[in-house]
Amino acid sequence: MNEFELIAQLTRSLPTNESVVVGAGDDCAVLECGDPQRQLLFKTDAVVEGIHFTSDIPPEKIGRKALARCLSDIAAMAGTPSAAVVTLALPKKFSPDFVAQIYAGLNALAKQHGVAIVGGETTTNPERTLISISLTGFVPRGQAVLRSGAKVGDAIFVTGELGGSRAGRHLDFEPRLPEGRWLAEKFSIHAMMDVSDGLAGDLPHILRASGVGAELLKSAVPISRTAKENSKRGDAAKPAFVAALTDGEDFELLFTVASKVAVPVLDAWKKQFPSVKLSCIGKIVAGEGIRLREKTGIRPLTAHGYVHFS
Amino acid sequence: MNEFELIAQLTRSLPTNESVVVGAGDDCAVLECGDPQRQLLFKTDAVVEGIHFTSDIPPEKIGRKALARCLSDIAAMAGTPSAAVVTLALPKKFSPDFVAQIYAGLNALAKQHGVAIVGGETTTNPERTLISISLTGFVPRGQAVLRSGAKVGDAIFVTGELGGSRAGRHLDFEPRLPEGRWLAEKFSIHAMMDVSDGLAGDLPHILRASGVGAELLKSAVPISRTAKENSKRGDAAKPAFVAALTDGEDFELLFTVASKVAVPVLDAWKKQFPSVKLSCIGKIVAGEGIRLREKTGIRPLTAHGYVHFS
Repeated sequence: MNEFELIAQLTRSLPTNESVVVGAGDDCAVLECGDPQRQLLFKTDAVVEGIHFTSDIPPEKIGRKALARCLSDIAAMAGTPSAAVVTLALPKKFSPDFVAQIYAGLNALAKQHGVAIVGGETTTNPERTLISISLTGFVPRGQAVLRSGAKVGDAIFVTGELGGSRAGRHLDFEPRLPEGRWLAEKFSIHAMMDVSDGLAGDLPHILRASGVGAELLKSAVPISRTAKENSKRGDAAKPAFVAALTDGEDFELLFTVASKVAVPVLDAWKKQFPSVKLSCIGKIVAGEGIRLREKTGIRPLTAHGYVHFS
Repeated sequence: MNEFELIAQLTRSLPTNESVVVGAGDDCAVLECGDPQRQLLFKTDAVVEGIHFTSDIPPEKIGRKALARCLSDIAAMAGTPSAAVVTLALPKKFSPDFVAQIYAGLNALAKQHGVAIVGGETTTNPERTLISISLTGFVPRGQAVLRSGAKVGDAIFVTGELGGSRAGRHLDFEPRLPEGRWLAEKFSIHAMMDVSDGLAGDLPHILRASGVGAELLKSAVPISRTAKENSKRGDAAKPAFVAALTDGEDFELLFTVASKVAVPVLDAWKKQFPSVKLSCIGKIVAGEGIRLREKTGIRPLTAHGYVHFS
């Protein structure tokens, strides 16, 4: 049983109550909070030493990444982050300076996005550092962009470039918060999520939630320079295109819009975010799964995204 | 540097924003959420294998305890819990049944208190299981009971009995949610918190936050039967009274009210919660720290509560 199967099994029978608009299974939960204009977003995420970062990483970057991952989930709902609580689990021997630097990185990114840190629990995890962050945010009522809205005929877009993030970008990426909000304000975005486990692993979440399939155009998938360089140096375990599909930790936005809106989205994006790439990588089709269109024809995409428990 | 000193250092400079009414340092944060009648409570807490539970504990009880600790913090604000997100960090080899049982315990307690579980992140923590839970709740606007409101002359109360919790009660305790709400609805509760690190470790949080001291009456401190039995069997490292002050994991409510309200509180409590003990254990005095009144006189209380990093 892999991570996704386990989560799917567990989330089928979670307790709910009248405050829940969208429960587990999307980038964030959407909750009623008594605000006539807004709904509350709620998300948790964790990073673990040896899994999501190595012990030689500067602690500021560890703290930054822990929060940035949650911010990326708020971005994927077209929301605005608000308040975070932090659980910091530390080995028995730790230096106060190490902890102070984790918080320095975390606090700096929080300030940048107007996020308050309103609780910090510390506990012991003898063998390794683990940071779990939970984040609330707000979204205008009814405007949260879910994974379940993709429609047959939609154009599929992805921001930025994919692959090779673990070489460094996973520590420095900018959560696509302004981009997510701008998209939802200006256009009818049918479905959106952030790409954290690789395009090949994450696009199926939108497809399953929406009951549709996708056809990707191989030549349109934006491959990062790092992924290309890795593959050329021959020290990569996989070709650049496969890296772009499966490396994970991209933290880019993946979304769909009606095909007639595709060109207006691209035109407006270039003016609004000239330094961030936006690529139309394919279309939503009837059926299920991903088909890949390349020069030699169309074939089912069997490459799997990054799966934690495999 | 112990846990409390570290937290104190870190929480002096946390980022804030206009939504924050009460930030880190109380049982929960209190946040504006756009509801004219209510404010949002927000709390995170974690349990770690080998620290908060042993590997022979039935997984249902681990899941239950992880949530119950957070519920106790909502109770200490006189709030009502609403929605939780769960980060479950698991060793590489785990059985799906183990995870399902953790969730069974967690879900059952959530349902009992009307709490929705709206997100579940799973990740790897190779050596041991760790569960971090974050919980939101609501409290009527302006009615959250803080640690900072104790006044000289107040009577100090504690619910239940203290000490010996690790023998089993820490896995089965009922979070004092109805009791916390009832107290705040019926009386002007000046200060309240939950006792998780032992009375001797936790009362000073109220005292420091309120700028006052306390005088405890030794004979009035309710000592659990387990703590008494442990000390009689001679297999306890400490006398029963010291166990009651320092064992931790009691998850009882500690609160103060004006002295003139002390008898009405006790009378009404006995009618409302006949099966739960309520003890007046002393009074708030000018100055700082805790003095202990016993037959032989008054002496400063030097016993420390349970401190995670010591």
